[in-house]
Amino acid sequence: MTDSLDRAMMARAVQLAWRGRYSTHPNPRVGCVIARGDRILGEGWHERAGEAHAEIRALSQAGPDARGATAYVTLEPCSHFGRTPPCAKALVEAGVAHVHAATEDPNPSVSGRGLAMLRDAGVKVTLGLLADEAMRLNPGFMKRMNTGRPFVRLKMAASIDGRTAMASGESQWITGPQARQDVQRLRAISDAILTGVGTVLADDPSLTVRREELGEIGDATEPSRQPLRVIADRDARTPADATILRGGNVQVFCASPALDTAPAQDLAALGISLSGVAWKDNGIDVGELLDSLGELGINELLVEAGPTLAGTFINERLVDELWLYQAPVFLGSTGRPTAHLPLESMADKVQWKVLDRRQIGEDQRLILAPV
Amino acid sequence: MTDSLDRAMMARAVQLAWRGRYSTHPNPRVGCVIARGDRILGEGWHERAGEAHAEIRALSQAGPDARGATAYVTLEPCSHFGRTPPCAKALVEAGVAHVHAATEDPNPSVSGRGLAMLRDAGVKVTLGLLADEAMRLNPGFMKRMNTGRPFVRLKMAASIDGRTAMASGESQWITGPQARQDVQRLRAISDAILTGVGTVLADDPSLTVRREELGEIGDATEPSRQPLRVIADRDARTPADATILRGGNVQVFCASPALDTAPAQDLAALGISLSGVAWKDNGIDVGELLDSLGELGINELLVEAGPTLAGTFINERLVDELWLYQAPVFLGSTGRPTAHLPLESMADKVQWKVLDRRQIGEDQRLILAPV
Repeated sequence: MTDSLDRAMMARAVQLAWRGRYSTHPNPRVGCVIARGDRILGEGWHERAGEAHAEIRALSQAGPDARGATAYVTLEPCSHFGRTPPCAKALVEAGVAHVHAATEDPNPSVSGRGLAMLRDAGVKVTLGLLADEAMRLNPGFMKRMNTGRPFVRLKMAASIDGRTAMASGESQWITGPQARQDVQRLRAISDAILTGVGTVLADDPSLTVRREELGEIGDATEPSRQPLRVIADRDARTPADATILRGGNVQVFCASPALDTAPAQDLAALGISLSGVAWKDNGIDVGELLDSLGELGINELLVEAGPTLAGTFINERLVDELWLYQAPVFLGSTGRPTAHLPLESMADKVQWKVLDRRQIGEDQRLILAPV
Repeated sequence: MTDSLDRAMMARAVQLAWRGRYSTHPNPRVGCVIARGDRILGEGWHERAGEAHAEIRALSQAGPDARGATAYVTLEPCSHFGRTPPCAKALVEAGVAHVHAATEDPNPSVSGRGLAMLRDAGVKVTLGLLADEAMRLNPGFMKRMNTGRPFVRLKMAASIDGRTAMASGESQWITGPQARQDVQRLRAISDAILTGVGTVLADDPSLTVRREELGEIGDATEPSRQPLRVIADRDARTPADATILRGGNVQVFCASPALDTAPAQDLAALGISLSGVAWKDNGIDVGELLDSLGELGINELLVEAGPTLAGTFINERLVDELWLYQAPVFLGSTGRPTAHLPLESMADKVQWKVLDRRQIGEDQRLILAPV
């Protein structure tokens, strides 16, 4: 039996976990509360890979009071010796009497082992409190553990008549400064940002998180690194002086035969990582690309691409969330479409479910999921 | 000095006026409250042209108690003998001591006369309480009296990628049943609905208000007539068996030379009104069309047209409000644009101000005004 006090404690643990939104990757965001009745004895959250897990931080704050207390943790405590000792063992040693875990570890090879370790030591274990909320902390980690692929967010900035640029390519700025700041936050929670070489050649973007544009982040841990920049670039045409290459941390995917060409070797000489993937008539094999990104430990992928690559993601139903920023302007019927997506009849239409809709400055942000 | 009680009374008068939203045309919507202190003695609103004005109904309900009372009326009481005796005279004769009028009559030839008639008879007159709210009751009447042209609402139903139909023209249904019911309400407050002959030929719409689809209208007066259906049809190509012609109440605008052609004469023989207006390279002379509709007493015009006519209205900045119904679907990059609007550079973009944004069923309705 769980009651409203238990839910409040787990809600607090979820809140603590979210403080690691910019910093835990490739690890999941995890929060923990140690309490006795309505008294919180310790709080913790995971900050960075290699540093203490949420449970260890909360136990350390609670000290000897943890004996006989209840722990609320958003993810099953780990059972393996990794860079840190197993949290399940630490909870047992501290004498915690009852552990509420919101979700099981999604990694099939360890799932359930932490809970078993606790039960075997006589600790009461309850699974599933606020499971949905806890799952939403780590859509990418959960998906990658289950499917090997990252969670895909496609971001678009468009006019209300569905255009992302003029025919000439001119597009700065469709949306206002608040929407662009929101995109900075979206980048900062992402492990990687994918674009196509067409965008690199046309706009020469940096696709970095600019800390000063991120604004106030409250009690969140500071971003610990830039997201990996990923370029889909069949023929290794990314120029050596492209802004996106500055500071490294770039992965170029080209068609396998291109790996042996001079342009690819020039990029490799600059220290850029290149990998070969299959290419199809309509562009990169996105499924294979996602598999590769999963292998690189990418949990949450943000796609900021032109109409061709965006259209491929939509057409192959590989988008988990579409983040559509809409400016209250018309760019006109000669402007560029949001996505290259040739559809014949109404039966082919791509239907979305509105998860969230809000005003950001003068613009609107829609978060959509495929139906 | 006005206080919050006066504002409450006028707010009630505005609310009463809105009951006539489907029925007063070509007259304005007007509401009236007669009160002494916080006690309402009589309420009235204008229902239909030729029937009693709001003040007369409120006075009739108040009876002899009106002597010494205060009247709150959303529009300056009339001073002329028309189909009914002047309301200003009736207020004087009833012994009303104080009249709050939210707005002056916008008709330049009578504006201020009703208030003067009251003042001359020793009635205290206060002008301007809740003037904005009262103006919003009658955007078309106000605009027509000032400019000779109707208030123009352009309605569009589009996907979030800015398409109103597939390349084939297929478009039923982009938006859901709740949005379509909302469009019925929008039609019902309109005096006229404009479309182009292209839409008539392609979709054969009725463009009528279907009472059963309008749903519950609460305490509003029942619609008293269908809006005038207006067709922009240069060469009088509207087929004699078009659905839109059923039941009459249709006005066709064609190029003046077409009036003498056989197709035009066939339509005239069916009892359809035809008028000639100028035609330009890119379509009908919308300014001249609006002047003609103003002369016909059209206060509020709803444009439900294809991309060409819609584009002309937008391009010539003749839209007062854009009602954009957006469905959370992609119709794809080969779909038809919302409006034919060729723009060269970002500097040409058409900027809108969001007046209202709300969820209607699965869709979103944006009400936008030009900036």
